[in-house]
Amino acid sequence: MALAYDPLFITSDKSPIDVPSPPPPSMTLTQDELKRIAAYKAVDFVQSNMVLGLGTGSTAKHAVDRIGELLRQGKLENIVGIPTSKKTQEQALSLNIPLSDLDAHPVIDLSIDGADEVDPCLNLVKGRGGSLLREKMIEGASKKFVVIVDESKMVKHIGGSKMALPVETVPFCWKFTAERLRRVMEGYGCEAKLRLGEKGKAFVTDNGNYIVDMYLEKDMGDLNAVSDEILRLPGVVEHGMFLDMASTVIIAGELGVKIKNKHSSY
Amino acid sequence: MALAYDPLFITSDKSPIDVPSPPPPSMTLTQDELKRIAAYKAVDFVQSNMVLGLGTGSTAKHAVDRIGELLRQGKLENIVGIPTSKKTQEQALSLNIPLSDLDAHPVIDLSIDGADEVDPCLNLVKGRGGSLLREKMIEGASKKFVVIVDESKMVKHIGGSKMALPVETVPFCWKFTAERLRRVMEGYGCEAKLRLGEKGKAFVTDNGNYIVDMYLEKDMGDLNAVSDEILRLPGVVEHGMFLDMASTVIIAGELGVKIKNKHSSY
Repeated sequence: MALAYDPLFITSDKSPIDVPSPPPPSMTLTQDELKRIAAYKAVDFVQSNMVLGLGTGSTAKHAVDRIGELLRQGKLENIVGIPTSKKTQEQALSLNIPLSDLDAHPVIDLSIDGADEVDPCLNLVKGRGGSLLREKMIEGASKKFVVIVDESKMVKHIGGSKMALPVETVPFCWKFTAERLRRVMEGYGCEAKLRLGEKGKAFVTDNGNYIVDMYLEKDMGDLNAVSDEILRLPGVVEHGMFLDMASTVIIAGELGVKIKNKHSSY
Repeated sequence: MALAYDPLFITSDKSPIDVPSPPPPSMTLTQDELKRIAAYKAVDFVQSNMVLGLGTGSTAKHAVDRIGELLRQGKLENIVGIPTSKKTQEQALSLNIPLSDLDAHPVIDLSIDGADEVDPCLNLVKGRGGSLLREKMIEGASKKFVVIVDESKMVKHIGGSKMALPVETVPFCWKFTAERLRRVMEGYGCEAKLRLGEKGKAFVTDNGNYIVDMYLEKDMGDLNAVSDEILRLPGVVEHGMFLDMASTVIIAGELGVKIKNKHSSY
């Protein structure tokens, strides 16, 4: 009777010998659990007296929570956090993490943040959460930049997945800038779309700018060359390619945690 | 009696033979008159039915005035102006020049604007008036870009005159960005200063950004390389070097008007 209601037991009208055994209880971790595992592993790099870049997004949030917890437990002391967004600033304040900024701390010991895509050379796409500019300023000023992702973020080449490569632009004549961006990246099968926020209005970044999402379907080849081409367009403030910036990537997957350091093999 | 009060006549206690003749009436043109001469000459390029980029600043103002005058007189018809700043927009509206923007007119027939420095290859420094970003967007979208200057603006190499090379930056941690800019340009004897506006507060551009003025004293050499280095700094929105953009420069001087076209000799 109990057996008849077990969803793991597949009933069959075949002979008993064909009935498959029930599979073992599921051990599948959710994507959020994988993100948390990567985040906690990254916080192992944090030591007392560090100036820390605090990332933004669903993965980085776990790292900031963990730093707050360790401070509260007295296991970390004398930390200065540099938040990469207003949202992270609010989260860190609620956790009583002492905060400062780049003007006061132009050199950061360690930054921890998520990424939307990571390639085998540890080049990243970031900014689907909209905080790419402050993240790039702060993470670019860090002696060590640890990236935390679940394994779904690992790609062969960034930007070619038809997922967004975000570009922050000034609002003034954004359509003109979006069209110029599209033309620069035409060879990579590009569509350019303004990111929308609440009530169908343009999403506005912490810096008062817009985001144009570039949807690409081909490998861009020389990423540094494409980066310069994008940055040369007046109206572009910054883009979401973080090239040669990550020092370590922590990847949480079903089979455990993998740590890749810059210049190690894939 | 009248002679005794003539300021041009120098009285002397020497013998009549030593008294100098009165000099001829002064023909010296003021800098503003030279600017107006260059501006009017540029407006000779304007034809009816053109989409026109309208520059910003004390020299461009004369050109916009002149375009308004010719429209009023019926000597020009069906002009669409694309203003490069809120200030120029106001001026053009007061002159009843029909206006539009880059989104509606992504290709512009002719732009006319001043410059702060012009080198022998017609590379420019612009932005001491603070409108460099919109100017660069609009003038970069123009089939023809005519620059109007008085002869004091002609330099051997741009940026080396200890005059400002303006850089538009996001307000977020501008000190950090200014210091990174200063370091990028350290080899050219650079000081970086935030531009101040009213009441000693930071000057704010039409795009809500700040201007960091770079005071240089040496030739920057490869301008395209320096341009890329500046644009690669996150926090930088745009800089005031307009490289390979001007098609014609009209230079008004004491001895007349000189017109230099791209690729002509100096």
